[in-house]
Amino acid sequence: MSLGEFDLIAKYFQRPARHALLGIGDDCALIAPTPGMQLAISCDMLVEGRHFLSTVDPERLGHKALAVNLSDLAACGARPLAYTLALALPRVDEGFLEGFARGLHALADAQGIELIGGDTTAGPLNLCVTVFGEVPPGRALRRDGARPGEALWVSHPLGGGIGDARLALEVFRGRLSLPGEGFERARAAMELPQPRVTLGLALRGLATSAIDLSDGLVGDLGHVLRRSGVGARIDADALPQSAVLAAQPLPWRRECTLAGGDDYELLFTAPATADAAVREAAHGAGVGVTRIGRIEAEPGLRVIDDAGQAVAVGQGFDHFKS
Amino acid sequence: MSLGEFDLIAKYFQRPARHALLGIGDDCALIAPTPGMQLAISCDMLVEGRHFLSTVDPERLGHKALAVNLSDLAACGARPLAYTLALALPRVDEGFLEGFARGLHALADAQGIELIGGDTTAGPLNLCVTVFGEVPPGRALRRDGARPGEALWVSHPLGGGIGDARLALEVFRGRLSLPGEGFERARAAMELPQPRVTLGLALRGLATSAIDLSDGLVGDLGHVLRRSGVGARIDADALPQSAVLAAQPLPWRRECTLAGGDDYELLFTAPATADAAVREAAHGAGVGVTRIGRIEAEPGLRVIDDAGQAVAVGQGFDHFKS
Repeated sequence: MSLGEFDLIAKYFQRPARHALLGIGDDCALIAPTPGMQLAISCDMLVEGRHFLSTVDPERLGHKALAVNLSDLAACGARPLAYTLALALPRVDEGFLEGFARGLHALADAQGIELIGGDTTAGPLNLCVTVFGEVPPGRALRRDGARPGEALWVSHPLGGGIGDARLALEVFRGRLSLPGEGFERARAAMELPQPRVTLGLALRGLATSAIDLSDGLVGDLGHVLRRSGVGARIDADALPQSAVLAAQPLPWRRECTLAGGDDYELLFTAPATADAAVREAAHGAGVGVTRIGRIEAEPGLRVIDDAGQAVAVGQGFDHFKS
Repeated sequence: MSLGEFDLIAKYFQRPARHALLGIGDDCALIAPTPGMQLAISCDMLVEGRHFLSTVDPERLGHKALAVNLSDLAACGARPLAYTLALALPRVDEGFLEGFARGLHALADAQGIELIGGDTTAGPLNLCVTVFGEVPPGRALRRDGARPGEALWVSHPLGGGIGDARLALEVFRGRLSLPGEGFERARAAMELPQPRVTLGLALRGLATSAIDLSDGLVGDLGHVLRRSGVGARIDADALPQSAVLAAQPLPWRRECTLAGGDDYELLFTAPATADAAVREAAHGAGVGVTRIGRIEAEPGLRVIDDAGQAVAVGQGFDHFKS
């Protein structure tokens, strides 16, 4: 069976418009932002073999393609509105498309947003999602607001931590092995990241800066520090870890938490006096948060362990250097 | 010399923000749409070997990647505001990036818009541009507004026509040859399409439906007819043609004008009484327009020649069937 471009869009991606004034099937999609609100826009391109493995369950891939973009909205404290999808496919594979669309639509439904347009073409597998959200003027969380003396926080699953996605990747790479259940949990962290949209909204007016963890804690924190013109000290032993990661040798624990990548948790700063408010915001969002260090005036990042010793760290993930 | 992802963005794509409240370098870009206006969004993905040849001048490719998206805004009668770019590159090729960015920025500057964000990654060459524009509520040109008795129009360069892009493609394919100057003109039509943004704005309140020609006249007109629930009759001999195309054998003239693709002209309908107003709008926009047929109640498309004989036509370009 051969589906053409327009059949393919209609069959898998077109659903009745809810919020959109004009959805899939015209030259443009039309949406009506709330008058006076600012529009937050983010765009991520996912390439096979680099952002996902060719063996990934298509449903999980659909989830992740949207989740990593929603994570950017979360890091800005924006409320998601809608998204577009551009898709290059080597061939029309209905099994792939059916699962991919299911994962995509399920997360979109959970977030109350809809696919408003996009493009499909033949080509090496490539997924490009662009998301749109709203934020009141001047209330967006940015990377440049961290100030000396503030506390540095990271979100994570309740009872879990950061670094599990990297742990799963290392299993796929054959560099370590995990017991069955532990592997499935780490794999879910890698393949089914949960965008912290509710937490991002709750942090508006509370966090002074925020970024989502996509390239690894050290690399992503570096963006905040440079843009804010500050430095930081973090306690490597304070980084939250799942039981699966905590059972690994120390070098892997360090690598996965400090430079893991693909966490899609929020890294944010808040006044040192705001601990209770931060914990309350996280509780309301059903997410864990851990205070991992502090912002300092001296530029650069200092990572120490519980014994006060400096910990050597990598530089985070760069798509053209790794 | 090796540039990383962040260096690459900074060197080639980051410029001082003008309209954007927050541009490249944060989790999201922020823009402030004019309160009460609707937001028009369009997204096109361009793949090497399918949407452009590997030999294309990078500067022209930069122009075209943005132009084809602006053409969608034009077809909606939307005023361009900003755009994002996601780019997968097999390797960091500074010669390519320098030229590509130059072509992109030149067209953006000419349209008064700016690059507000995006993504870069390693991968098979893939360009995904998403554009944002504004339109007053209820004033967007759509595909579903054509009514029986209305006139059907197509835009084109002053003194030129449609189909030249396809003509150039056929030269690259080795299926025909053109004299040097004629080839350069046809090639410019293919590689440097001019989005009809000014015309689209002038057609608000005048055109009853519009679409941009990307997949070929017959195929694109079919979208308008189906969504509007009408049919049409067009005169194949009335289709505007450049001197270069007019010198070709009849079958090539028919193929290039009726099913050419990559024209990025506007195909639109207007009341039969509005001819003078349409010509005035086009004159103001510095663009040619030709009346090529009429909308009829009977579904389907009837293509006839000057002698009143039916002309057989193809079905337009489908990215998974061609």
